[in-house]
Amino acid sequence: MTYEPVPATHREVRLARRPSGAPAPGDLEVVEAPLPEGEVLVRNEWMLMASAYRELMKERPGLPLPPFPVGEAPTGRTVGTVVRSQDPAVPVGALVEHFQGWREYAAGPGGAFAVRDRDLLPGPEYFLSNGPTAWLGMAGMAEAGPGDVVFVSGATSGVGSVAGQIAKARGARRVIGSAGSKEKAEYLVEELGFDAAFDRHDGPALDLLRELAPDGIDVFFDNTGGEQFEAAVQLARPGARFALCGALAGQNGDDTSAGRPRLDLLTAISRQLVLRPFACFHTPDQIDGWNRQFAQWLDEGRFVYPRTVVEGGVAGAPQALFDLLDRKFYGNVLLRLTGGTDRIDEGGSR
Amino acid sequence: MTYEPVPATHREVRLARRPSGAPAPGDLEVVEAPLPEGEVLVRNEWMLMASAYRELMKERPGLPLPPFPVGEAPTGRTVGTVVRSQDPAVPVGALVEHFQGWREYAAGPGGAFAVRDRDLLPGPEYFLSNGPTAWLGMAGMAEAGPGDVVFVSGATSGVGSVAGQIAKARGARRVIGSAGSKEKAEYLVEELGFDAAFDRHDGPALDLLRELAPDGIDVFFDNTGGEQFEAAVQLARPGARFALCGALAGQNGDDTSAGRPRLDLLTAISRQLVLRPFACFHTPDQIDGWNRQFAQWLDEGRFVYPRTVVEGGVAGAPQALFDLLDRKFYGNVLLRLTGGTDRIDEGGSR
Repeated sequence: MTYEPVPATHREVRLARRPSGAPAPGDLEVVEAPLPEGEVLVRNEWMLMASAYRELMKERPGLPLPPFPVGEAPTGRTVGTVVRSQDPAVPVGALVEHFQGWREYAAGPGGAFAVRDRDLLPGPEYFLSNGPTAWLGMAGMAEAGPGDVVFVSGATSGVGSVAGQIAKARGARRVIGSAGSKEKAEYLVEELGFDAAFDRHDGPALDLLRELAPDGIDVFFDNTGGEQFEAAVQLARPGARFALCGALAGQNGDDTSAGRPRLDLLTAISRQLVLRPFACFHTPDQIDGWNRQFAQWLDEGRFVYPRTVVEGGVAGAPQALFDLLDRKFYGNVLLRLTGGTDRIDEGGSR
Repeated sequence: MTYEPVPATHREVRLARRPSGAPAPGDLEVVEAPLPEGEVLVRNEWMLMASAYRELMKERPGLPLPPFPVGEAPTGRTVGTVVRSQDPAVPVGALVEHFQGWREYAAGPGGAFAVRDRDLLPGPEYFLSNGPTAWLGMAGMAEAGPGDVVFVSGATSGVGSVAGQIAKARGARRVIGSAGSKEKAEYLVEELGFDAAFDRHDGPALDLLRELAPDGIDVFFDNTGGEQFEAAVQLARPGARFALCGALAGQNGDDTSAGRPRLDLLTAISRQLVLRPFACFHTPDQIDGWNRQFAQWLDEGRFVYPRTVVEGGVAGAPQALFDLLDRKFYGNVLLRLTGGTDRIDEGGSR
């Protein structure tokens, strides 16, 4: 059963060697390879690019996932369309989400592919948002809600850009973001509806944050660690909730202070802070729940999908990762792997 | 209505001046003063000495309580017997707990005194244990239970010595303590039933803890901060719960690293640690609940009351604080303010 013709070979990116220091062009190679085989064959349309992939390229103890194997295509969150199937639960034509990214086609048993309701969201790439992580952190860990003053560090990141909007949509009184440039700070306020934002290069984080939150913060959603974490502790109000998602900052080189900020225990104890570090693993229910919430907020016009679309195909994946690590992008970074689109939707995209 | 004769004057300790650096003898003075007046008059029997008093002697922003006023007697957790009363809810003869420590007599409205069931525990000083704090941290914050490997830093402190026993009584698989000397480490194992303990001077905390917990820890109850906090993060198992009570360590001088350890965010996130800093404020229900639990475990022979009794009376209070800060004591430090006792109970006492 064939939905569309499939080629005999496809392109995929392989990890050629482990990076020494920051990932560099020779670490990833694009190869032409035989089409993968399996019960279900999927043409990949979009992959979410993520800074976490930098860490998984290395042999780094303590990560929640094993490192990418050398000589193989890495994993990555991807959506595509089923083009061949022997599993009736994953039929031809279905939109599916899976982890065989960095390649044009994916294959495997039906259980490797989660079917998505294509009509729920405006496009397949909407199913790849960092929303489940942002939602888990902002709603589940930090319980941001009406009246809260919320600070999101690294707020133009894929997770941060969604997290800030979630806080607003849940009724937060004031949402403040930090960003890596003046342009990104403006983007937060003008396009994503943050109440205030600062460029972290403009001074000590403690001073910048205090100016925007003179009475302190109730919620901190951390994507960076470092001095922004330390500033958030100093400005936390009693009982403030911290959702900590910022481990990956500053790991690209010797800036270890970002990944290992000082924790002021006396202040944390005096104010009875709740610190919840959390990783990006989600149950199917969490993902479905987020996608439904996302659809509703989009319908109500209360949300934009903050994203950068990279049109380079599989061959452009390595450069897209390098550009992401150079902080060139805004919001969720979506790499088109195959196909095109006749739909134009620029909401929140740069 | 008089239960026993009362004098016209009593002795109290006053804060003569704010310490510059570590508290020194001239900072506290013992004076003879008129008996305080109020609806209820209490003869104080025992006060719990605590390292937190050092911080409250200073003008230190960020503390959960205001500093002790200069020229007045400080506050401190105390039990005593009502000797005069115009409040039928706080009758003469009742055992009451309150915060007017550092003096022989306390007075005030009935609402300032919490009546205790004298028959519940073996002696009045048992009502002054650090149990409510240890219980809140070990049961409420860390939820230590069957199967857990538990690490308590600063385990011979008042809070730590009770916390470790609570973990054992709740079924923890293995309870490990750190202490400030070889003798204190032995005390933990031989008298309090810890499974293992180390002297923190014997090497890097990470090495010492790894040797005793080669498969990692599920619960950390922190009384010290510093390198023991950092070691606990490195050895935490996924989902480990941290009850953080150690802010006051290392604040006596320039050892700020104890109070501001590095938080390894990547590890904390990868392992999804739950970090709960908490302070020692308790509801009446929490205190009553602990006292009943304490009584039951004492009856069952599963618990000792780890304590040091200081017999110096009010005049000995300043030196008792200095000795406590010099880490001379074991367990809960109980200062006898007035009266004597014909009961001898040395369980866990040194």
